[in-house]
Amino acid sequence: MTLEALFDIRYPILQAPMAGAQDHRLAAAVSLAGGLGAIPAGMLDASRLDAELSAYRALTERPCNVNFFCHSSPSIDDTREQRWRERLAPFYRELQVDPAQIASGPTRQPFDASMAEVIEQHRPAVVSFHFGLPAPELLERVRRSGAKVIASATTLDEGLWLQEKGVDAVIAQGLEAGGHRGMFLESDLSTQLGTFALLPQLADALELPVIAAGGIVDARTARAARVLGAAAVQVGTAYLATPQSLASELHRKALQDPRARHTVVTCAFSGRPARGIVNRLIREIGPLPETPAFPLASNAITPLRARAESLGLDDFTPLWSGQNASQCRTVDAGQLTRELGEAASDKA
Amino acid sequence: MTLEALFDIRYPILQAPMAGAQDHRLAAAVSLAGGLGAIPAGMLDASRLDAELSAYRALTERPCNVNFFCHSSPSIDDTREQRWRERLAPFYRELQVDPAQIASGPTRQPFDASMAEVIEQHRPAVVSFHFGLPAPELLERVRRSGAKVIASATTLDEGLWLQEKGVDAVIAQGLEAGGHRGMFLESDLSTQLGTFALLPQLADALELPVIAAGGIVDARTARAARVLGAAAVQVGTAYLATPQSLASELHRKALQDPRARHTVVTCAFSGRPARGIVNRLIREIGPLPETPAFPLASNAITPLRARAESLGLDDFTPLWSGQNASQCRTVDAGQLTRELGEAASDKA
Repeated sequence: MTLEALFDIRYPILQAPMAGAQDHRLAAAVSLAGGLGAIPAGMLDASRLDAELSAYRALTERPCNVNFFCHSSPSIDDTREQRWRERLAPFYRELQVDPAQIASGPTRQPFDASMAEVIEQHRPAVVSFHFGLPAPELLERVRRSGAKVIASATTLDEGLWLQEKGVDAVIAQGLEAGGHRGMFLESDLSTQLGTFALLPQLADALELPVIAAGGIVDARTARAARVLGAAAVQVGTAYLATPQSLASELHRKALQDPRARHTVVTCAFSGRPARGIVNRLIREIGPLPETPAFPLASNAITPLRARAESLGLDDFTPLWSGQNASQCRTVDAGQLTRELGEAASDKA
Repeated sequence: MTLEALFDIRYPILQAPMAGAQDHRLAAAVSLAGGLGAIPAGMLDASRLDAELSAYRALTERPCNVNFFCHSSPSIDDTREQRWRERLAPFYRELQVDPAQIASGPTRQPFDASMAEVIEQHRPAVVSFHFGLPAPELLERVRRSGAKVIASATTLDEGLWLQEKGVDAVIAQGLEAGGHRGMFLESDLSTQLGTFALLPQLADALELPVIAAGGIVDARTARAARVLGAAAVQVGTAYLATPQSLASELHRKALQDPRARHTVVTCAFSGRPARGIVNRLIREIGPLPETPAFPLASNAITPLRARAESLGLDDFTPLWSGQNASQCRTVDAGQLTRELGEAASDKA
């Protein structure tokens, strides 16, 4: 069965969920054009997710993908927290931010029973997971709701693990991809493979459809992913540049800047490795500082980011981007979906 | 003009030069099958290169590519040398190697006037450079010999620099590639791009033909590289597994082992970053130790390698490999060339 049939979509195009940078509006534009739109739930609580899914449904009856994180919730480690704030202290002084005002507690919630309830109510066609899978009983509730389940793999071992757990398709997240690495069995970044290696390896080894992610931004890259064995492609960065995303003006400007050519995998913004454009924070403290556990690292950054953004600076803003941002154009999300869709559907 | 016409070859396939792992025999097998064979000169002196080129010519009249390194020759830094040997001291003790026996001096020679003379005598069709280009007067001698000049780029800036210097084609060396990274303007590994990003970026920005390298091992990956804009593909790791390479039994075994799935970019063997399979040295001292400058780091490793290999161990052997080794098969180099060639010639 093709992924188009499995998900009931016209084109083998998935819009990558991008928590913090888009909501139901981008998802609906993609789905209405024949792709699979995604609603990122990683930064929502159950009631806000419920509202998002209702808002999506008001725009279209088409299938959508609801995306969750599956990290284990960290307990607060005062020593690491303290060290992290000391590392950032020069920035607090410079920007006149009072560290006493820093919020505590997680900024991202893993998939839990309250989220499962929302899924049971709204019954989305597809549920996707990042950072592995939820506990078996929660996964079973998602399945029983009727949703197809997909999840990200960054190595062959992760792909085989997901297949064994019974997912319906695997997303091969190549190292070129923007945003958080989905790695969950691996913590060593040197295990991460480029799309050109990961995709054919997973396509060969798995009996499931493989969805390519990482570097796919235009017709040519979509076609190449199909040649490498992808049943469909997932596209993130290119959708950030569409009017339907919620990417800030600073983020949009950064994506169009030639400096967008230099992205790095950094844990400085959240505590987990994620690819973004090099900016001041990364330049000055390095891409892989010691931080509190994901997602706690972000709290100490948030007021710096807010203050700098109020001054028109992206110095502390996570500028998530894949390695092919320079090929993105400002184009309507529906049009982009159709263009990529025609290219990816071409079984040349 | 196609690269096939420019180089007078049948298929748009270049065999990647692999110093230390192949000689004129692999090159001739590839060229006789219609690709462009390569003779790596990085570890030869002028008289040995002369002998290699004569031996090649005795096997075939077909064009070939002679490959040179373009690093600047380092002076010996006693402090760094001393620290490096201290780092390796536990291994010397364990393997009963006497550090006093370590050779000094460079194990690889950059392209120089003596090499230019050999080129002028043998007039190969193509000369390729890694780590940038030689000094203008040396480059001019190569040009005047009639050779087409090609060189590796690992970023857009390096590609533009090479184009400005007048090369005939640029090799886009994606991060998946095995062996030494050709980076020469960049020293920061985070600038290095996956094939899926580097290749279309160079194909868009340059007016020259772009040759794809990194992850190309079979028909599918060759075709995908063409879709991404490559005029031809360069293949290394897949040729290591052919009977015509000089890869050691240990190296061949490692390439077929599932652990070949984990390669890293390491400077531990030579002082410059290069991708190889993780083995004991890399595991125990990390992939990026502080070492003497390229190529001096290798001297202190050589006796450890020799001793371990005599015991049947690849603990200190550089097991160069790209990220797609698991898809390589033991197949004749001529047959591999024809298979990849047909796939890469298919203008689907």
